[in-house]
Amino acid sequence: MEVELKEMLDDLLSLRQSLSDPSLHASIDKLQSHVDRLTHLAKSVPVQRSKVKDMSSEVVDSNPYSRLMALQRMGIVENYERIREFSVAIVGIGGVGSVAAEMLTRCGIGRLLLYDYDKVELANMNRLFFRPEQVGMTKTDAAVQTLSDINPDVILESYTLNITTVQGFETFMSSLKNKTFRPTKEGSGVDLVLSCVDNYEARMVVNQACNELNQTWMESGVSEDAVSGHIQLLIPGETACFACAPPLVVASGVDERTLKREGVCAASLPTTMGVVAGLLVQNTLKFLLKFGHVSPYLGYSSLKDFFPTMAMKPNPQCSNAACLERQKEYLLAKPARDAAAKAKMEAEAKATVTDVPLHTDNEWNISVVDDNEPESTCGTSSDVLPEGLTHELPTADEFPKPHASGAPDMAIDDLEDLRRQLDALNA
Amino acid sequence: MEVELKEMLDDLLSLRQSLSDPSLHASIDKLQSHVDRLTHLAKSVPVQRSKVKDMSSEVVDSNPYSRLMALQRMGIVENYERIREFSVAIVGIGGVGSVAAEMLTRCGIGRLLLYDYDKVELANMNRLFFRPEQVGMTKTDAAVQTLSDINPDVILESYTLNITTVQGFETFMSSLKNKTFRPTKEGSGVDLVLSCVDNYEARMVVNQACNELNQTWMESGVSEDAVSGHIQLLIPGETACFACAPPLVVASGVDERTLKREGVCAASLPTTMGVVAGLLVQNTLKFLLKFGHVSPYLGYSSLKDFFPTMAMKPNPQCSNAACLERQKEYLLAKPARDAAAKAKMEAEAKATVTDVPLHTDNEWNISVVDDNEPESTCGTSSDVLPEGLTHELPTADEFPKPHASGAPDMAIDDLEDLRRQLDALNA
Repeated sequence: MEVELKEMLDDLLSLRQSLSDPSLHASIDKLQSHVDRLTHLAKSVPVQRSKVKDMSSEVVDSNPYSRLMALQRMGIVENYERIREFSVAIVGIGGVGSVAAEMLTRCGIGRLLLYDYDKVELANMNRLFFRPEQVGMTKTDAAVQTLSDINPDVILESYTLNITTVQGFETFMSSLKNKTFRPTKEGSGVDLVLSCVDNYEARMVVNQACNELNQTWMESGVSEDAVSGHIQLLIPGETACFACAPPLVVASGVDERTLKREGVCAASLPTTMGVVAGLLVQNTLKFLLKFGHVSPYLGYSSLKDFFPTMAMKPNPQCSNAACLERQKEYLLAKPARDAAAKAKMEAEAKATVTDVPLHTDNEWNISVVDDNEPESTCGTSSDVLPEGLTHELPTADEFPKPHASGAPDMAIDDLEDLRRQLDALNA
Repeated sequence: MEVELKEMLDDLLSLRQSLSDPSLHASIDKLQSHVDRLTHLAKSVPVQRSKVKDMSSEVVDSNPYSRLMALQRMGIVENYERIREFSVAIVGIGGVGSVAAEMLTRCGIGRLLLYDYDKVELANMNRLFFRPEQVGMTKTDAAVQTLSDINPDVILESYTLNITTVQGFETFMSSLKNKTFRPTKEGSGVDLVLSCVDNYEARMVVNQACNELNQTWMESGVSEDAVSGHIQLLIPGETACFACAPPLVVASGVDERTLKREGVCAASLPTTMGVVAGLLVQNTLKFLLKFGHVSPYLGYSSLKDFFPTMAMKPNPQCSNAACLERQKEYLLAKPARDAAAKAKMEAEAKATVTDVPLHTDNEWNISVVDDNEPESTCGTSSDVLPEGLTHELPTADEFPKPHASGAPDMAIDDLEDLRRQLDALNA
């Protein structure tokens, strides 16, 4: 817009010079003031932040990554910047998928692949992310618009397609296989697939794709009454796949979306979907950056704030042929896995022994710790805090010592003390 | 912008008519095409959605409330539209407060009061809500800009102030007391205060204000290592206040914000903050719309997906004088509370008895249910599903019956069956 306005100003100036009649100069002046005001208006249009080459941990207001790189200094993550190497595919950019995409974008993920065929509607406005002015856009286009403004460092690939169609499934599969972003990566071209779809058919398609590609993925969902949700980790062959334990009741011969919309429209809440997206992406970060424990299944029942967990083994009678293949591979690889685990344990045990050579005859590895803390220069108390911090409550040492006379006296003191407190309350 | 461009076009046309030299018409044409292109560009600037008078439950794409009103049909909430009567104050519009404000805005809350004194920085971009183009704006202004675009039905009041200053505290108190929005409301002018601040001093100020006003509030927080958080319900006199059990270590003589920034910059994640905001607003909805159970305290430990809960009674030796006053009032009101609870229980018991007048001598209220379901016209099976639904797995009746010959035969069958499955896997 600025370029257009600049050109227009130049054209006006040359027109003024060509005008023989000076009485027309006033018209040119008026036009020029229009351009000035438009230039001023155009300046209030958003400006993107520029790309950042390296993630810096510098603590300045202008660093979008300082609070993430601080995870390293806090000892939570070993190497945060590795996040730039990872690709995550999000299938379904609705109430959960869009928020998951925004979280990963703000965390500085390397590459996001987004899949959806739907358009933004006003009826979506009770969930986070999409804005009323995006109504009518495809969810993928609207997401790319918002996400690229938020973090231009993330590579965004959007696919406006329905994965449950033959053509859509083919494109879905080839996009997952594409390794241009990191050619040295083993397996598929993505590190994790997040399923954020709202129907059984689409879940079964993601399941099929991931079983075929031997691709680890995470399932997510919210209940039709909007007050419960879940996330689930699926590792082909190792954990139950989605077909190993399918839902007991599913749609048949009817589009599940229509079924939901006519009269039985599903409820939804930004809270439940925000929590599920948060739990999903938190487990994604734990999985990719190798910290904490990735939950195999985590439920969220909001009426009672109950969070059930469980683990599901694969079903040897699963109806999905690719799942059975992955199960077989997993069983065959058991001896190699056991040997690797044993070798790792032995190496760690050896390292521990080497690190602490106390006494050769100290078979229990007992160590004696000096609790005088001779390295502290602040005093002899072990309760000394860094400058600027103070204890809000007195320490045990600072409390008045009880009478030396023993238990009976103390009991009377306590009762009298209680009576005083009660009097004070009733005063 | 459209008005400016329209005027400019008119001016150009009148200029063309004043021009005697036709060779200059080309210049006018060129200027006109500039205006056309600018008009096209201006059209991509956001348009707001119009206000909605009543919350409709109509299931159409253009209804922003259909999925919320569905909570009534699903039996979760008795009267969803009551949400328009409520006022919620959010103190601290950072990583948790801004997302909480967006959730409540999308849920169609009546009125939001927002308090913050800080400005948006690029260093905030690793959390949800604020966008890079808002850098430099106050958080309150940026929030009002975004939230009024999302839902113009919500009344937004923003206060750019620091509640820990004398002047700021006075404005904070008088804004909470203001009852213009709902003059008939008992107590203060707000239904709930959400504390989303990041330091001890500000929490103590919110605590002081709420104890003085006898105002129920919810506390929230995230840990400095970004992987834990909590929410807490505080009802003056009934539950522990923030001063009843203060943190063991707090800042002293130093601004806590400076303390955090120099070298020990706190880490933060959009996931943890999104989950905490979601749990906070979900409990806010349960509290306001009276459904489910409001958690007195709920922790979130993300490394292990652990969610501890607990309840804390007030401390009779609390250092906060207003808390002690509220405790005294609560104790004094106990007989009235007990009587009300008893009357309610008796009324409910009576209603149950009146509803089920089986037999006057049926003192155990035993009822006999006919399991032939005579009202069903679809068949005699109780497993008949509505049209469009089907059972994904066979029912127990459809499984082949075991041999009648008894246990020994069955055991052999099972073993052979297992061997066949193993062979199939190894095939």
